Amino acid sequence: MEKGLFLTFEGGEGAGKTTLIEGLAQTLRSQGREVLTTREPGGIPIAEQIRRIVLDKGNTEMDARTEALLYAAARRQHLTEKVLPALARGEVVICDRFIDSSLAYQGYARGLGVEEVRSINAFAIGDHMPALTFWLDVSPEIGLARIHAGDGREINRLDLEGLAFHVAVREGYLRLFEADPDRIVRINAEQTPEFVLNEVLSILNARI
Amino acid sequence: MEKGLFLTFEGGEGAGKTTLIEGLAQTLRSQGREVLTTREPGGIPIAEQIRRIVLDKGNTEMDARTEALLYAAARRQHLTEKVLPALARGEVVICDRFIDSSLAYQGYARGLGVEEVRSINAFAIGDHMPALTFWLDVSPEIGLARIHAGDGREINRLDLEGLAFHVAVREGYLRLFEADPDRIVRINAEQTPEFVLNEVLSILNARI
Repeated sequence: MEKGLFLTFEGGEGAGKTTLIEGLAQTLRSQGREVLTTREPGGIPIAEQIRRIVLDKGNTEMDARTEALLYAAARRQHLTEKVLPALARGEVVICDRFIDSSLAYQGYARGLGVEEVRSINAFAIGDHMPALTFWLDVSPEIGLARIHAGDGREINRLDLEGLAFHVAVREGYLRLFEADPDRIVRINAEQTPEFVLNEVLSILNARI
Repeated sequence: MEKGLFLTFEGGEGAGKTTLIEGLAQTLRSQGREVLTTREPGGIPIAEQIRRIVLDKGNTEMDARTEALLYAAARRQHLTEKVLPALARGEVVICDRFIDSSLAYQGYARGLGVEEVRSINAFAIGDHMPALTFWLDVSPEIGLARIHAGDGREINRLDLEGLAFHVAVREGYLRLFEADPDRIVRINAEQTPEFVLNEVLSILNARI
């Protein structure tokens, strides 16, 4: 059995996941918890190789179903090599994006169908769903503005999609949240980073 | 609608698919048919990149579900970029391995479950199933002996599996054949290449 706590963080581009996760991990560690922060592909060589194919700007012919299968493959490898061992050691695992990203981006925004994308991800993750998922909800306009203001991160193929795509991603997250409010917590991520962190901490204290 | 004819060839290592496919394509072309012979990843750059990850001998940590998802991803890309356009042009497409390889190798021999692997492949291929599938049935001992006799092809990670694995692959094919004898044709591939080719041609004439 898993002894640890599996938390995932979701949201569109520029939602502020990175800053929040750093602050949360620091706080939990100061409380004496062992914390692993990770994101797919998470330094797992096989998953890194897979992700490199997805993000390669040269791969313009990539079919949307190919992309969804590749995300599921990278997810599986990262889960088995990094997440599950840490949970078995009793750690808090904080993962930047997980299954809901595929459901919102590929299933909803790309129109593949949420249930179809869920089926390949069910194959990938089995019953290892996160205990809680925080959805950092930010309007696409604000999120993209944050990115283009420049955070030093290289712009990749997904960032180059149009605004309409990001609007659809947000709507996808909204539907996932409405369908599973017990697992998914919606956070107003247009607030200051300090406010967002405090809100997540108080929800964690109340729910876990 | 697809106007062409989609044929796939299956079998364990050393079954003689390459020789058969060459002979079959030559015969059909001499009869005036447009023929595309292909095999996953089929020169499709994205599918080639995916296959490189699967066959990399250094990727010893690869989880069996990761592998199955990667095969499904490469299959999807090869299907959309190469197979479907050729079928739309009215060609005969002869494909060396397709969904049944994943069902026999990953679903059955690796124990992932035929129905689970079928579900991710259903996502990958939709309703584009082959009209006919020829299973070149050869005992694993004879197949592996043919490989080790050396045919100039580089030995890859799959070839290095033990005999028990190849025995399980053959049993997987046998079950697929028994479950779907209308689509899958079993060919005794321990006969001479000429005999095998003639058997395939006469079945094609009778069935198509």
